[in-house]
Amino acid sequence: MDVGGTPYRTIWLDEHDPAVVRIIDQRLLPHRFAVVALRGYTDGVEAIRSMQVRGAPLIGATAAWSLYLATLESRDVLMDAASALRAARPTAVNLAWAIERVLACLRAAGSAAERRSLARAEAEAICDEDVAANRALGAHGLALIEQAAARSGVANVLTHCNAGWLATVDWGTATAPIYLAHRRGIPVHVWVDETRPRNQGAALTAWELGGAGVPHTVIVDNAGGHLMQRGRVDLCLVGTDRVARSGDVANKIGTYLKALAAHDNAVPFYVATPSSSIDWRIRDGLREIPIEERAAEEVSDIEGACGGEVTRVRLLPPSSPAHNPAFDVTPARLVTGLVTERGLCAAREDAMLELFPERRT
Amino acid sequence: MDVGGTPYRTIWLDEHDPAVVRIIDQRLLPHRFAVVALRGYTDGVEAIRSMQVRGAPLIGATAAWSLYLATLESRDVLMDAASALRAARPTAVNLAWAIERVLACLRAAGSAAERRSLARAEAEAICDEDVAANRALGAHGLALIEQAAARSGVANVLTHCNAGWLATVDWGTATAPIYLAHRRGIPVHVWVDETRPRNQGAALTAWELGGAGVPHTVIVDNAGGHLMQRGRVDLCLVGTDRVARSGDVANKIGTYLKALAAHDNAVPFYVATPSSSIDWRIRDGLREIPIEERAAEEVSDIEGACGGEVTRVRLLPPSSPAHNPAFDVTPARLVTGLVTERGLCAAREDAMLELFPERRT
Repeated sequence: MDVGGTPYRTIWLDEHDPAVVRIIDQRLLPHRFAVVALRGYTDGVEAIRSMQVRGAPLIGATAAWSLYLATLESRDVLMDAASALRAARPTAVNLAWAIERVLACLRAAGSAAERRSLARAEAEAICDEDVAANRALGAHGLALIEQAAARSGVANVLTHCNAGWLATVDWGTATAPIYLAHRRGIPVHVWVDETRPRNQGAALTAWELGGAGVPHTVIVDNAGGHLMQRGRVDLCLVGTDRVARSGDVANKIGTYLKALAAHDNAVPFYVATPSSSIDWRIRDGLREIPIEERAAEEVSDIEGACGGEVTRVRLLPPSSPAHNPAFDVTPARLVTGLVTERGLCAAREDAMLELFPERRT
Repeated sequence: MDVGGTPYRTIWLDEHDPAVVRIIDQRLLPHRFAVVALRGYTDGVEAIRSMQVRGAPLIGATAAWSLYLATLESRDVLMDAASALRAARPTAVNLAWAIERVLACLRAAGSAAERRSLARAEAEAICDEDVAANRALGAHGLALIEQAAARSGVANVLTHCNAGWLATVDWGTATAPIYLAHRRGIPVHVWVDETRPRNQGAALTAWELGGAGVPHTVIVDNAGGHLMQRGRVDLCLVGTDRVARSGDVANKIGTYLKALAAHDNAVPFYVATPSSSIDWRIRDGLREIPIEERAAEEVSDIEGACGGEVTRVRLLPPSSPAHNPAFDVTPARLVTGLVTERGLCAAREDAMLELFPERRT
């Protein structure tokens, strides 16, 4: 996507120095746009852990590029890199998926040079495939926006967190149909949940949509149910960090509450997921998807812009503790459907397997 | 309640100057505790509008004291004061209820002195009755905490916004059973929703509970559903700004989402309401309760403590708009029961009328 007229992906190999991978430091948005360098796999681990990069597909891509950086060091570090990356964040399945893909392609490699070359090619492939998958997903999801716009004049889409191009290599998952619709002149307006505690909606989704000229309005996470009760939401469209074989969906904390409200108000609730976010090994999302708990400081403190500076302020009384689960699981029964790169399907194993028959066991 | 060892109500007539009403400026909490003066009814209107005072019962009490201040001016201003107060905030029914009560008692008054004296007595009565109602409500609600503690060892209560002593004259509504339980040594722990956009949970409820030594943990508004899915909430207990005759409940934006999650996880969802918050004139909460929309700046900006100063920071990109509905309506079907000063009842007209037979029409 364009930033100030220049097209960007969220991660790329430096065009002059093949020992440097570049990312956008997403912790600084929306107040500052800065590109930073990863110069070794430990930088990649730290970028994932500190959420310089986030979003399941981008976490996967960053892991792949981090393994490539590890191949520039020595053979010995590769398994260390894989373990450190795997442990960086627990919920998004793309992390393990990308690591397994890169390690698998390196198994046949003989020389160090061959490992580097294969790892680079695989990281590039993962990125290119992500872009292609999201674009295809967008084309399939476009029909949902078109239908909503046909019904309501303007398609009012509610989204949670950031499942935008910043969460992927490009296009985004939930945003891909929105960007496509906007480019085709279909009237679309997005209700952006701010998405406490890290405010990825207010900070990233609003910034993205604004940059692309897509009409949007930020709301607090509390407001979506009320808007649905009043008929002001035509469609909920969110991303995911992991979809179980059953159609249960892990996504940013609070997604479940919106799914309940959508169900209660007969608003369609769709989850945009490239197949890289589907974990075919698990069935029961509530029991089997690990939910990351993050630092209490993400709840007790918040950052924002104050007189040109990014300032952190404390919201809580000094002695009040906080608890910070980062994701929740929306049971498949509350999900109207999945939007994948191969088309739409119900959030049910049989329907998912019709699109992905190679996953039948 | 005690603040630093001194007992406070949230509003009182200055003990030396009967032309001054004192309130706590709640906009400064939890960072600073400051008592400010209302010196005329316009100060009262402004205190309500700017949310120096908030919470349905306290809004009512402030309106009553503001009318008393108006009686110190001239007879002419009384109806102006009543109109300005009525328009200050639309959702809490206690505002209109308190204004009507004071105006009704003034109808018989002959002299200016009599008006002053009657208005003062009525404002005092409204305050004292609020304290008594909340204490009685607390005693009735105590059984819910006791049952939860008996089942789970510790009663884990989730609350939204601030329905604490700061929202009333004293004791609070949702907090009254909690304070009583804590004083009696019943193990209770409160999950405090931060309650964006104004963070009354993080700023006021956490401050209150901390001051009283009640164990509590602040969570973002997104987290409650997940905690309920994991069995970590025994009871939801919230306040209300207006209960319809049908049992529909208006409360701080986001309450509806928690009620949906409670319903989905079979967690009891109770609403603590003194009868002053029941609007017997309306039946359909969703259609008939006016929902205040507040300034977008409450969403786009937030205040917190930074190096001893209270600082406001901007969360959104410069050009992203925000929308800020302040309340939502939870349909009666999602409410397990009401806790009133006369006891518990189902959120249904027939059950409510059994407790308040004088309201049969």
